[in-house]
Amino acid sequence: MIKKLGPRKPRVPFAIGYKKYVEVRMSRSGALEQRVTNCIRLLAADGVEKAKSGHPGMPLGAADIAYVLWQKHLRFNPDKPDWINRDRFILSAGHGSMLLYSLLHLYGYDLPLDELKNFRQLDSKTPGHPEYGHTPGVETTTGPLGQGFANAVGMAIAYQVLRNSLSKNGKSPINHKIYVIAGDGDMMEGISSEAASIAGHLNLSNLIVIYDDNKITIEGSTGLAFSEDVRKRFQACNWNVVKINGHNLKQIDNALKGAGNKNNKPTIIIAETKIAKGSTCLEGSCKSHGSPLGEDEIINIKKKMKFPECESFCIPDDVKAHVKIRVDKLKKEYEERNEKFEEFMDKNPEIKKRYEEYKNKKNIDINELLNIDFKKDKIATRSASGIVMQYIAKKVPGFIGGSADLGPSNNTMLKEYPSFSKTNRNGRNLHFGIREHAMGAILNGMAVYGGSVLPGGHRGGLLPFGATFLVFADYMRPAIRMASLMKLHVVYVFTHDSFFVGEDGPTHQPIEHLWSLRTIPNLDVVRPADARETAAAWAQAVNNDENPTALILTRQNIPVLDRAKYASAENLLKGAYIISGEKDRDNLQLIIIATGSEVSLALEVQQKLQGDGVSVRVVSMPSIELFERQDKNYKKTVLPADCLKKVVIEAGVAGGWYKYIGADGLVFGMEGFGTSAPANVLIDKFGFTSDKIYSQIKNRFDF
Amino acid sequence: MIKKLGPRKPRVPFAIGYKKYVEVRMSRSGALEQRVTNCIRLLAADGVEKAKSGHPGMPLGAADIAYVLWQKHLRFNPDKPDWINRDRFILSAGHGSMLLYSLLHLYGYDLPLDELKNFRQLDSKTPGHPEYGHTPGVETTTGPLGQGFANAVGMAIAYQVLRNSLSKNGKSPINHKIYVIAGDGDMMEGISSEAASIAGHLNLSNLIVIYDDNKITIEGSTGLAFSEDVRKRFQACNWNVVKINGHNLKQIDNALKGAGNKNNKPTIIIAETKIAKGSTCLEGSCKSHGSPLGEDEIINIKKKMKFPECESFCIPDDVKAHVKIRVDKLKKEYEERNEKFEEFMDKNPEIKKRYEEYKNKKNIDINELLNIDFKKDKIATRSASGIVMQYIAKKVPGFIGGSADLGPSNNTMLKEYPSFSKTNRNGRNLHFGIREHAMGAILNGMAVYGGSVLPGGHRGGLLPFGATFLVFADYMRPAIRMASLMKLHVVYVFTHDSFFVGEDGPTHQPIEHLWSLRTIPNLDVVRPADARETAAAWAQAVNNDENPTALILTRQNIPVLDRAKYASAENLLKGAYIISGEKDRDNLQLIIIATGSEVSLALEVQQKLQGDGVSVRVVSMPSIELFERQDKNYKKTVLPADCLKKVVIEAGVAGGWYKYIGADGLVFGMEGFGTSAPANVLIDKFGFTSDKIYSQIKNRFDF
Repeated sequence: MIKKLGPRKPRVPFAIGYKKYVEVRMSRSGALEQRVTNCIRLLAADGVEKAKSGHPGMPLGAADIAYVLWQKHLRFNPDKPDWINRDRFILSAGHGSMLLYSLLHLYGYDLPLDELKNFRQLDSKTPGHPEYGHTPGVETTTGPLGQGFANAVGMAIAYQVLRNSLSKNGKSPINHKIYVIAGDGDMMEGISSEAASIAGHLNLSNLIVIYDDNKITIEGSTGLAFSEDVRKRFQACNWNVVKINGHNLKQIDNALKGAGNKNNKPTIIIAETKIAKGSTCLEGSCKSHGSPLGEDEIINIKKKMKFPECESFCIPDDVKAHVKIRVDKLKKEYEERNEKFEEFMDKNPEIKKRYEEYKNKKNIDINELLNIDFKKDKIATRSASGIVMQYIAKKVPGFIGGSADLGPSNNTMLKEYPSFSKTNRNGRNLHFGIREHAMGAILNGMAVYGGSVLPGGHRGGLLPFGATFLVFADYMRPAIRMASLMKLHVVYVFTHDSFFVGEDGPTHQPIEHLWSLRTIPNLDVVRPADARETAAAWAQAVNNDENPTALILTRQNIPVLDRAKYASAENLLKGAYIISGEKDRDNLQLIIIATGSEVSLALEVQQKLQGDGVSVRVVSMPSIELFERQDKNYKKTVLPADCLKKVVIEAGVAGGWYKYIGADGLVFGMEGFGTSAPANVLIDKFGFTSDKIYSQIKNRFDF
Repeated sequence: MIKKLGPRKPRVPFAIGYKKYVEVRMSRSGALEQRVTNCIRLLAADGVEKAKSGHPGMPLGAADIAYVLWQKHLRFNPDKPDWINRDRFILSAGHGSMLLYSLLHLYGYDLPLDELKNFRQLDSKTPGHPEYGHTPGVETTTGPLGQGFANAVGMAIAYQVLRNSLSKNGKSPINHKIYVIAGDGDMMEGISSEAASIAGHLNLSNLIVIYDDNKITIEGSTGLAFSEDVRKRFQACNWNVVKINGHNLKQIDNALKGAGNKNNKPTIIIAETKIAKGSTCLEGSCKSHGSPLGEDEIINIKKKMKFPECESFCIPDDVKAHVKIRVDKLKKEYEERNEKFEEFMDKNPEIKKRYEEYKNKKNIDINELLNIDFKKDKIATRSASGIVMQYIAKKVPGFIGGSADLGPSNNTMLKEYPSFSKTNRNGRNLHFGIREHAMGAILNGMAVYGGSVLPGGHRGGLLPFGATFLVFADYMRPAIRMASLMKLHVVYVFTHDSFFVGEDGPTHQPIEHLWSLRTIPNLDVVRPADARETAAAWAQAVNNDENPTALILTRQNIPVLDRAKYASAENLLKGAYIISGEKDRDNLQLIIIATGSEVSLALEVQQKLQGDGVSVRVVSMPSIELFERQDKNYKKTVLPADCLKKVVIEAGVAGGWYKYIGADGLVFGMEGFGTSAPANVLIDKFGFTSDKIYSQIKNRFDF
């Protein structure tokens, strides 16, 4: 259990008596502390005011919490934002970004005051919501509610993995905490319930969430929509729960002292606060949430707080000095801890080697994967993927992940490794439960944990993967978007990729998902045509650390294409390639583009048409994104503009295919939802037989 | 508080003594009851076996619960699946569909035994997961986990609305319960936490969820990923919680007797069960979840249960007779209740009138909306929408909805009506909190509540709407898909529809969302160009009850186009129209297609190009889906194929636009994520000025 809170008798420095000591403390340090929190408040208010846009309420309300956390608990070195052993600070309530920027500036990060003055302006380091890889000290991009909370759970998993990996005799040089400030919105979003459940289940005890319980949302009081007993809810998920007054510095301090690594449970500190605390007229009002306070009000606040009325972005010298003491101490502590870290590493060369490996992403040799013997003529790409993943697991130590309870169907179990659990931190198989959304955000947290937060900094650490049925990618879409926005190295394994799912019916048959994923910027969607393309797709997904990759895999068995007859699957890396050229090189009459399971169908159609003397090319196009990254010449070679007759075969909506085939092109796809029936019946119903496609092409193009 | 459970002394019919009575009861009724539950089990197992596909574990495990519920509590009339006062039964664990089909058949619904034998086959009434509007007695489509649970919350809201609307002096002829069977997966999905929180907050006391707690998921024991104290979790959300043995018929009965309408709280009955209960070798095993049990095992089970070994789909006469007693009683009860209902209605003609109105969706006159005086030259379409909605609220009594805590930004408050709350069932403004996903599924539940569950049956009841920022449509995407699949009459109000959001930055700027929504079959996506198109869009959304509509609205002010100069906004109903024709009708040189805020930009570009003598047509294309429903001739008239020069201006990804402009067409859209800066700065950065577009068009087409 967590310590009981309340005033504790401090050590009294001189024999001045307790009462006198308290008086002195109140008048000096106490007043000064208040002054620092007010300075944070005013920096945030000034930032929003200057931008004429932003969210002042949250920073004013949470300034006391943030101050105590940063001044007394958070361990970091502003000169080393990438220090692996730093405590992490995640502002899940990302709309309060000016709070974070104010802290980063005050505590010495490379974020000049001018950047705070440039809040929300083009190319500033202070965008509307905190952005990962953009501003030193920002651990993850937040704003969409619940994401930061769940990212932190991912970081806490990654922490346990790293700590365990670098430990000897139960001791590890990795030892830090993960702090989150979350708001009412984070609490309401379902993703936080999913993530909290996982965190409690896995005993992620260094995770400490401070819930800025200001009881105000955009529509008014949280009482309009939210009357949960948050204490009970988190207790139900195996968390420590502490409730405090979020403006009482002593209570905040005590709660934080009692939190973390105590009894194997994560901790939530429910801090009751007033939104816009310190404002003379908007304290407690939803009007302070998303609009500047107004010039007059800011002057009023400055008067009240005894700050220079007409000065903006003012940081008084005593505030600076107060904070500097902390930063100097932290830097010293950093040096000491780093020294010990190096000592430990020098004494344990094997662990040092592991750590070096961890820091540098390891590439995989595509040829090794292409040479895998799949031992079958026909194999589902999900099964091929499962075989390939076993190879990758051996070569890439940071390769870790799991499924949202579909491991046996997604074929994502790393068979030679145990499950990660509260008792086994050595495991590499994660069991996310039926919680796709949290899975997505946890992967993001795991991906950022070991990498650099600096713009252009190194990638490294874990390579997390997560799996579910393609149709349920919808459940985790907001997290996929965040991964894409942050350009994280994350791999999604989406199986059961079309109506070929069969009997499970329209709720389980993806129709729109290929194109809906392809619309997300920075996401590579790769739908391999057979086992070999699956191997190549995995090589691409592992070796490309620039952005996330979604692998789209079949449920049903499909032929392993004879690569002596057809072009090499290595061409997958180019996104699209001529897998089977036209008979008559001087007279290309038709191009059939296909992806995934439809490539072998396209090859059948080609054969039929060539039997009639039509010169047909088949292009396997597993990834539009990879293809678009090729040079113009290559693109023209594969899809020459002067061949006007082009068709696409893909078991999904037509979406953006017309870009490649023109408005007159023909898409053999799906126009509505699927239906429940055996796949072999649906093939016929939806027209995905070579006979049907062959005759439609003949009719359309008068061959 | 809920009643304490335990054996209650029954009334003993004769003076045979309690002990003797129990003996008799056990040997007759008890054994017979067990026989009925086993019959249900075997129907389900046979169905899955014959289909060679499906989920037998859940039906076997939950058969006892389902039997007691249907035999003793659920009030329905199988001949009248649309009876408004029926209890609702929602199988949220939709993969257990054979349980539902077995019940529907046994209890006399129009679902012949042959349909059970046709489980999961093409065009059968027994698809892999239950489908709304397809099988009588199926209240909503389930399968994607958590959706059914949240639908039920929506039904419970709709119930309160209707009950209140038809009440007099606190009495109402509407009086029934809503029962859900939910599984572990439903519990884990975040949407159920969101929905449970809302249900408890709103005191939805006639909602009774039976949690089939079988502790098994696909990957194995729920202990792998799920260790919540479910009791505490629901208590935290203001629910009654009862825990029982889910195979003890008496405990199930007592729990159900004690549930509903007791103390203003919804109830969850945590029923501990064994998956595949009754199986000789797979009881308690995850292997029973998603595969047939196997012929041998089914024979073993039949032997054990004393059912004819070699007969499939066997319903013994004593089982039939036992069930018939219940059904006859229910039909009689229906007649009585219906009589009283009619009496009440006859006595209260005003209420009767309201009920008639409720049953029949009311159309709105588009002209009335088009004539609204918006009183401004420039107005954001979200603001125009807010004005239009006030008119609709007056005309359409069932128009009810709200926002995921963005009411003031989405402009969705119905100003003359109160909020719906636990104390005011008369309210028409719902406060969903920051819970987009539950909002989506609740809208679905509200939409199905008052309509017909029969194929081709009438639409009616409420017209629910839900709002959030367009970018957060991702959070509710699975529920939007379900609405589209079920073709529900639901309206989404998605505001802040592009990078014009400005300072909030890339996390809040939709880029891919227009096209990702357009990929969903059956969903109309409508992005009006100004206030008048917004009015027309609302008319379309209200009057088209065939499928859901997503309205896509601007944050920023945009011109109200002069309809004396430009074509009427009524043309929005056609999806696309020539808003401003080319100067030279005989020489159409260029077509600019635009949507939403980009239409006025297109008109500016047209003017510039026409200044240079280029004959340009501007097509406003608010809805691709509506356009595709027009006849070929109209489509050709608007977008003639012989005009090869076409461009699109839309502040999002290019997606599927090439279908309308050809591979050579030019899309002025977004290629990556947005960035944080004032909108007027971003306009320039992303090239959305008439100057930039004008000069690019000139260059490209050599005008």
